[in-house]
Amino acid sequence: MNDWRSLCAARKAAQAASIPEAWRVTLPPETLLDVRSVTEDCQLLSQRELEIIDLGTRDVSALARLLADKDSGYTSFDVTTAYLKSALVAHQVTNCLTEIFVERALDRAKEVDKYMAEHGKPIGALHGLPISLKDQFDMKGLETIMGYACNIGKFADNDCVLVEILYELGAVPFVRTNVPQTLMWGETSNNVFGRTTNPYNRKLTPGGSSGGEGALLAMRGSPLGVGTDIDGSLRIPSAFCGLYTIRPSYERLPYHGASNTLMGQESISSVLGPMSTSISALKLFTKAIIDARPWDRDPLAVRKVWNEKEYELVDHGGGEHMCFAIMWDNKVVKPHPPLKRAMEIVKEALEKEGHQVIDWEPLNHIDIYKNAQTILVADGGEDYRRSCAASGEPLITSMSPDTDPHPIDLEVPLVKTLVGSPRNRTAWELWQLHTEKRALRKAYLDHWNATKTKTSTGRPVDAIISPAVAYTAVPHGLNYDSFYTTLGNAMDYACAVFPVTSVDPTLDVPLPPHDFHNHEDEAFYKLYHPDVFPGVPVGLQLHGRTLEEEAVIAMVEVVDAAIKKHLV
Amino acid sequence: MNDWRSLCAARKAAQAASIPEAWRVTLPPETLLDVRSVTEDCQLLSQRELEIIDLGTRDVSALARLLADKDSGYTSFDVTTAYLKSALVAHQVTNCLTEIFVERALDRAKEVDKYMAEHGKPIGALHGLPISLKDQFDMKGLETIMGYACNIGKFADNDCVLVEILYELGAVPFVRTNVPQTLMWGETSNNVFGRTTNPYNRKLTPGGSSGGEGALLAMRGSPLGVGTDIDGSLRIPSAFCGLYTIRPSYERLPYHGASNTLMGQESISSVLGPMSTSISALKLFTKAIIDARPWDRDPLAVRKVWNEKEYELVDHGGGEHMCFAIMWDNKVVKPHPPLKRAMEIVKEALEKEGHQVIDWEPLNHIDIYKNAQTILVADGGEDYRRSCAASGEPLITSMSPDTDPHPIDLEVPLVKTLVGSPRNRTAWELWQLHTEKRALRKAYLDHWNATKTKTSTGRPVDAIISPAVAYTAVPHGLNYDSFYTTLGNAMDYACAVFPVTSVDPTLDVPLPPHDFHNHEDEAFYKLYHPDVFPGVPVGLQLHGRTLEEEAVIAMVEVVDAAIKKHLV
Repeated sequence: MNDWRSLCAARKAAQAASIPEAWRVTLPPETLLDVRSVTEDCQLLSQRELEIIDLGTRDVSALARLLADKDSGYTSFDVTTAYLKSALVAHQVTNCLTEIFVERALDRAKEVDKYMAEHGKPIGALHGLPISLKDQFDMKGLETIMGYACNIGKFADNDCVLVEILYELGAVPFVRTNVPQTLMWGETSNNVFGRTTNPYNRKLTPGGSSGGEGALLAMRGSPLGVGTDIDGSLRIPSAFCGLYTIRPSYERLPYHGASNTLMGQESISSVLGPMSTSISALKLFTKAIIDARPWDRDPLAVRKVWNEKEYELVDHGGGEHMCFAIMWDNKVVKPHPPLKRAMEIVKEALEKEGHQVIDWEPLNHIDIYKNAQTILVADGGEDYRRSCAASGEPLITSMSPDTDPHPIDLEVPLVKTLVGSPRNRTAWELWQLHTEKRALRKAYLDHWNATKTKTSTGRPVDAIISPAVAYTAVPHGLNYDSFYTTLGNAMDYACAVFPVTSVDPTLDVPLPPHDFHNHEDEAFYKLYHPDVFPGVPVGLQLHGRTLEEEAVIAMVEVVDAAIKKHLV
Repeated sequence: MNDWRSLCAARKAAQAASIPEAWRVTLPPETLLDVRSVTEDCQLLSQRELEIIDLGTRDVSALARLLADKDSGYTSFDVTTAYLKSALVAHQVTNCLTEIFVERALDRAKEVDKYMAEHGKPIGALHGLPISLKDQFDMKGLETIMGYACNIGKFADNDCVLVEILYELGAVPFVRTNVPQTLMWGETSNNVFGRTTNPYNRKLTPGGSSGGEGALLAMRGSPLGVGTDIDGSLRIPSAFCGLYTIRPSYERLPYHGASNTLMGQESISSVLGPMSTSISALKLFTKAIIDARPWDRDPLAVRKVWNEKEYELVDHGGGEHMCFAIMWDNKVVKPHPPLKRAMEIVKEALEKEGHQVIDWEPLNHIDIYKNAQTILVADGGEDYRRSCAASGEPLITSMSPDTDPHPIDLEVPLVKTLVGSPRNRTAWELWQLHTEKRALRKAYLDHWNATKTKTSTGRPVDAIISPAVAYTAVPHGLNYDSFYTTLGNAMDYACAVFPVTSVDPTLDVPLPPHDFHNHEDEAFYKLYHPDVFPGVPVGLQLHGRTLEEEAVIAMVEVVDAAIKKHLV
C-alpha cells in the first residue's frame, strides 16, 4: 500500500491535464525570478481581458459594481474567462492551484449571466464575481485535498457554508489554491501538488498556509481570494505578496463544513478571511458574508449583524484625530530594515493627516507565543500522524528545498526551545493552558486600555500597527516563526494586513547589530541583505479589538489613504 | 492537617456570628415545611419594609425606577435594610447564604444615597438596588468559598468584572449565596455551609447549583440575584423556586475574574445570568450589563451591543403571530403531570393570543447529552480531586441526606451508564468530542430551520418551549439529571425559565405508565405522587437561538403576559 508517491503523481498529472490545451503557455526560463509580467507577455489574454484583470486588481468593488449593472457590458462569462486564463498562467509559473475546473466555473458564470438577462438585476452582492478559494473550502463533487495524499479521491458531498453563501450571493468560485501539508507552515508545499513560489521572486516563498492564494493574487490571477488563519496564514502570504487581508475574530465568518487540520481544536480557532490586491475587497467580502446571516446555518457563527456605525468609527472619534501605536520591535525578533522603513512611512503619513502616533510597548509576547504554540500541538502531533498514516506519506518536517537550500538555516527554531517536544496533553492540562491564555488576554487588554493616559484622544490607542512578519518574503525553508501574527490569533484581535512599499536596496541598508533578543533574532539579523530581497513587497499589520472587524477595515482604509496621499 | 471539619465548623460559626443579634428570629419548628410566611410572621420587618420587598418581588424595574428618582422617598439604605433583614430571615430558615456583610452593604447603600443627594441623579442603571450574588463572584476582601473548604481564608484581591460593573452602575451587592461542592450538582450542599432547602417545602431541594439564590429569591430575600449555568444551574433552581431567569449564550455577559470549578474548561462555558421573582429583572439586568460594554474589560466577552431591534422581535415578525413549538417529551425522561399541565396552559394562552403552537420533535437528545457530559468530566475528575485534596475534605458523591433519605433512589443514574467512568482524556480525544458537538449543533440548527415548512409564519419556529426539568422540586438527593437543560448549554441557545403554575393534587393526577424510555424514566415515573409536591412551583423553559438574548427576553415577556391574561 506504500503507493502514495504514485497516487500523488497521478493526481498531479490529472491536474496538469485539466489545463485546457489552448491555455498552456511557453514557460519562461527558471532563471526568470520575477514572473509577474508573464501574464501579459504570454499573450494568452486579450487586451480587454487584461483590462478586466487590471480593474479587478485595482478595485474589486468597482468590478463588482460593473458586474451588477446589466448595462455595463461586463458579463460574468467574460470576467471569469479573463481570470481563469490569468489564474492558469499564474499556476504555470508559480504552481499555485490545486483544483482546476474550467468548465464548471464557466457554466456557473453563464448561469449567473442568464439570471441577469432574465431578471435585469444581480443575484446578490457578489454577482458574477470570480472568487478563488484556499484548498479547504469544500465544493460538492470536488476533492478537498488540503495538502494530504489521503484526501485524493475523496469527493465532497456538500458545499461548505461559505460556498453555499457565495453561490447565493451570485459569486463564481473558479479555482482552489495550494496549501502546505498540515496547514501549519508559513510556507506552501505538500507531497501532492508540490511547492508554490512567490511571483515577485520564485526563489522566495509566498508564505503560507494560504500561500497558493498569495501567489495567485500577486499574479493578478484572482480579484478576491478566501484564505484561513490560525497562526498567521492569511497575514503572512498577504505581507509576502503585497496584498490586503483581514483576519476576523473567531467565528465571525462561517467556517462550518470547510475541511481543516486539527479538527475540533477550538482553543485558538482558525478563521477565514478575504485576500486581495484591492483594499475594497475587505469590506465588500466581509459585509456581504455577514449580511447573509451566517449564524442561520453555521451554529458557531457569531450572531452580530454588520455594524455600519462601527465602520464609521463611532468608537474611534468618527475617524478624526485617532491615535495609533507602532510596535517597532516585539522584543522577540527585530524587524528587518524594510519593515522599519515601512513603519516610518506610515507614521509620517498618519501624522500628516492629523493623527497621533505613539510607540507600542510589547507585553508578554514570548509568554503569549509559548502558550499558543503549546495549545496548537497539544495533541502531540496525533492529528498529523493519522492523516499521514492514512496514505503512508511521510510527515514533512522542513520546508527547505531538497536541492539548493539556502545556506543559512536555523537548526533549532525558537519555537522548539519554547514548547519542547510535542506530547499528547491531557484535557486537564489543556484547561490550565486556557486559564493561562485568558489571563494573558486580560493583561494585554488592560495594557491596551492603559494607553488612554498616553493619547490626546481621551481613548486608548485606536489600533496597534506592527509588522505581520519581521521580514519580507524569505528564501524557501526559512519562514519558521509567526511571532508577529500569533498575537492576533491568541488574543483574538481583528487584524488586517496592508502593503506599504517594496524593498529598495538603496534605502533599506543593513542596520548595525543590536543586542539580540535570542538566537533566532540573531539568525534573522544575519539573513538580511538588501540584494536578496529587491523589489519584494513590504506589508504591515493593524490590530483592532476582538470582534471589531468593521472598525479595523475602516482604519486600514484610513491608513492606506494616508500612505497613498503622502508617499510620493 | 486533617482538620477540614474544624475549619468548616469554625467558618460556619463565624457566619452565624455575622448575623446581627437584633435580626435573629425565633426559628419555626422543623416540621414547618413551607416557610415563606416566616418573613412576615417573624415581625422583624416593618410594614414599610414588607412593602418594599413586596414591590421588588413583583417588579424590580419599578423598584429601580423609584431608587433612581431622588424625590421618590426611596433610599438605597431603606431598601437595602429591608432586603438584608428578609435575606437573613431567609437564611435562618433555608440556609441559603454564604457571605454575610451587613455593615459593608449598608455603607455602600449610604454611599449611593450620598451620591444622589449631591448630584441629584443616579449613578447608573442599577442605582441603589440590592443584588445578591452566587458564591462565585469575587468581591475584594471577601472569601469566595464556593463550596470548598480549601477556599476558607482566601480573600479576593479584586472584584470580578461583573462586580466592578455592578458598582459602576450604582448597585449594592449585599449577600452571597450557597452552592454545592464542585458546582456540578442540581442541588445545593457542601461541607462548609451545609445544605440549602426549598422555601416551598424544606424537605425538597431548591435545585442547584445556584440553589442559594433560588431559596433566597423564593423567600423574597433579594429583588435580583446573579447565578451561573454550565448545565442548568440557573434554570433548575429557577424552575424549582418559581423564578424567572435567562441563561445567556457563552460570554455574552462578563465572567472574567469570577471563581469557578473546572477553570479553563471552555468547550461548554459556564455563563452568568439574572434570577428573580420579577420578570422585569431579565431585561433590566441584561441590558444594564451589556450597555456597560463588558468587552472593554473582559477579553472573552462578546462585543455585541444591546440590540433593541432584536428585543422588538424584528426577527420574529415584530412579535405578532409567532409560532412556538412545545417539547412535550424529550424521549429521555417524560415530564411529570404538572409539567404537562403547564405546557397545556401555555399552549392555550398563546393560541388565544393569536400565536401558533406546534409540537417539537426532539432530535439526538441522548447523543447531545452524552457528548456534553463526557466533555464536562474530560479531566477525569482531576479538578475536583485537587480542590478536595487541598483541604483534605472528601468529595461528595451523593446529595442524599445521611439521615432520612428518600426511599426511592437510583443506584445508577442514566448519565453514568452513558458516560462511563470518568477518565482523564487526551487533548486529541477532546478535539474529537468538539467535532462531534459541532456536528450535533449543526444537525439541531438544520432541524430547527426545517420547521419553516410547518409554520404559518414563513419562518422556522420562533422558540422552543419545554420543561427545564422533567419534574418539580424533588426530595433532597434525587435530582441527578439535567436532560432538559443540557440542550441549551451544549447548543449554546439563549434560554429562559418562567413560572407557570403550581402543583395542584386535584389536577395533577398520576398518568398511566408509558413505554419507558429507560430505567431512569421509569424511576421518575414512579416517584411522582401529587401528595409529595403540593403547591410547589411549576416552571417552563423557552429556547431561542444562540446570542439571541434580546429576543428571548421579549418572547418570555409575550408568553408570561399571555399566561397571566388567560390563567383565571
